[in-house]
Amino acid sequence: MKRTSFARDSCPVARAVDVVGDWWSLLIVRDAFGGNRRFGEFEKNLGVAKNILADRLRKLVAAGVLEQVSSADGGAHKEYGLTERGRGLLPVVVALGQWAACPEAGFALVDRKKGKPARLEFRSEDGRLLGPDDVRLVRAGGFDAANPPAIR
Amino acid sequence: MKRTSFARDSCPVARAVDVVGDWWSLLIVRDAFGGNRRFGEFEKNLGVAKNILADRLRKLVAAGVLEQVSSADGGAHKEYGLTERGRGLLPVVVALGQWAACPEAGFALVDRKKGKPARLEFRSEDGRLLGPDDVRLVRAGGFDAANPPAIR
Repeated sequence: MKRTSFARDSCPVARAVDVVGDWWSLLIVRDAFGGNRRFGEFEKNLGVAKNILADRLRKLVAAGVLEQVSSADGGAHKEYGLTERGRGLLPVVVALGQWAACPEAGFALVDRKKGKPARLEFRSEDGRLLGPDDVRLVRAGGFDAANPPAIR
Repeated sequence: MKRTSFARDSCPVARAVDVVGDWWSLLIVRDAFGGNRRFGEFEKNLGVAKNILADRLRKLVAAGVLEQVSSADGGAHKEYGLTERGRGLLPVVVALGQWAACPEAGFALVDRKKGKPARLEFRSEDGRLLGPDDVRLVRAGGFDAANPPAIR
């Protein structure tokens, strides 16, 4: 039987999942984009148990998504900031947000320079806007996810 | 103390997490984009325990992400297909893939019409390409995630 999906060890999504770990981790990253830096802020906003939060923060630091930095006010406690790798997760957070958005209770993505709305969009090589049905996933090596080989 | 993050009940990311459930669910969705339709295919490709897989498939159907459809070959068994809502998760899968991509082992997103590479990108209202540092999240209601209010 031919494989009709991405192998677990080579699929970037599976690899990303390995790094980010679980949904708590992604919610921590989301809150870091929201300006949270302190353990107590994450705990309060997420309503997560201290031991789970400590574990996920440790893993996110180990994965290079967050880094511990000195307190912005010069205090003795440590704070958590997004690394460059961590900031690269913004499209993931935005994609989830756009998927689930409800008009009255969401967040908006804005163009920092102009203060106008921005979007996360599929675009062709030459810049054309593409809808979800205009694109397909092709496995490196030629596997075409939208037209999988016969499986029987 | 002012909130410095999105409230759990109103943030679209948290709501999305509630629907999709956990990472296993997202990997199931990824494999559905990859052409998987049968219980045994998901089980084989993900290496997930039957009871976990059955639970996650049930939840994804309940959430309207997957639907049970008759077998394509007319057999008695049921298959699982992405609903329109489920197909809307493609940007999430692609965003995770782009974040974690490694040159030799990833998948590529292609423009279905031309067969050329496509990308998931931030764009301004007037179509300019924006980098991750060119955008910010603004909470509906005026909360600016990139410039949070003082928290003390």
